[in-house]
Amino acid sequence: MPRISESTVRRLSHYYRVLDEVAAEGQRMISSHLLAEREGITSAQVRKDLSYFGSFGRRGLGYNVEHLRAEIRGILGLDRRWRVAVVGSGHIGSAMLAYRGFGNQGFDVVAVFDASRERIGAALEHLVIRDIDTLSAKDGIDMGVIATPARAAQDVADRLVAAGVRGILNFAPRKLRVPEEVTLRAVDMTMEFESLSFALSQPRGARRRRSTDE
Amino acid sequence: MPRISESTVRRLSHYYRVLDEVAAEGQRMISSHLLAEREGITSAQVRKDLSYFGSFGRRGLGYNVEHLRAEIRGILGLDRRWRVAVVGSGHIGSAMLAYRGFGNQGFDVVAVFDASRERIGAALEHLVIRDIDTLSAKDGIDMGVIATPARAAQDVADRLVAAGVRGILNFAPRKLRVPEEVTLRAVDMTMEFESLSFALSQPRGARRRRSTDE
Repeated sequence: MPRISESTVRRLSHYYRVLDEVAAEGQRMISSHLLAEREGITSAQVRKDLSYFGSFGRRGLGYNVEHLRAEIRGILGLDRRWRVAVVGSGHIGSAMLAYRGFGNQGFDVVAVFDASRERIGAALEHLVIRDIDTLSAKDGIDMGVIATPARAAQDVADRLVAAGVRGILNFAPRKLRVPEEVTLRAVDMTMEFESLSFALSQPRGARRRRSTDE
Repeated sequence: MPRISESTVRRLSHYYRVLDEVAAEGQRMISSHLLAEREGITSAQVRKDLSYFGSFGRRGLGYNVEHLRAEIRGILGLDRRWRVAVVGSGHIGSAMLAYRGFGNQGFDVVAVFDASRERIGAALEHLVIRDIDTLSAKDGIDMGVIATPARAAQDVADRLVAAGVRGILNFAPRKLRVPEEVTLRAVDMTMEFESLSFALSQPRGARRRRSTDE
């Protein structure tokens, strides 16, 4: 399989959502044209993306919805469940725990940690906030969410890595260093705003929309 | 000026942070090598990024920190203040209001809206939650943050656009349609998780880290 770009992975996530919708509508087949239309991209791009993973479609008939959905589910690693730990029990941490959608996709938030004496032991949604000092490899965490203040983020990342966590989603506004074998994604709110202010500062003609396709 | 890619804009945001740090440390000059090292990219990439905007550096001397900082501030549109409205007063909306860092960068959250009768009129940080029905062009909002349930998101986007908002940051897990002249950025938590589960599902040898440089 060739190296798959981050943007292809994001489009696969989008296709997966569309397939969910059309399956719920009772459709059995979907054309690359329709799949493209729902996402606002070209059908050639859809066919190219799906061609990485073998030939799913049948000329003139399109793709079998259930089959394609199962294939993408496997590619995205959604055919198993993932154990997620959230570190930080503030607004972002609480949002992660409150959002029911993750569970539907196979992401189970099984632990929430904090360093604050006042918070440890308190209930947050379906969990009790644990002392970050108690995080260990025994927890069997696959993915960690860092929702702490910036100053604590690198220490938390190091603790997650030491506990065997292989994927980290960082919300703290701090660039983190992790070993090569750990996958790191960052959501930086200020950077999102800066990306908007950059776009809004361009002369009208030069402005462009960014889609998830980039 | 050539079309600047989204990844270049993100790197400029990163450079801006590094320049803030080194300015605070009292440094007057910085080499492309050091700027690159702090971000974990090549110095050739740094020089290429900065070359879009004219020649700032002096061979052998590097870049003047204050000058480069001011230039990037201008490019990113951070030399003015932006009026931001948050729609939705749940966890994400609250997180946006609580985070002090936005103000430092010129993003002033001046209004928060909700549709829930119970929430309208309540205080949230420095603001009082307003009825979304009262949003209008008179508010002079530049950017809107959508932090509502998915089902409300498109309606809110339409209202923001009707009120003259030109930049939207969407946290709701729903693909939105906005006119060409409006810039839309989306933060999709489930998609971030799927990007991790994809990476973690790859055979070890094929695994790769994604940096902000992609």
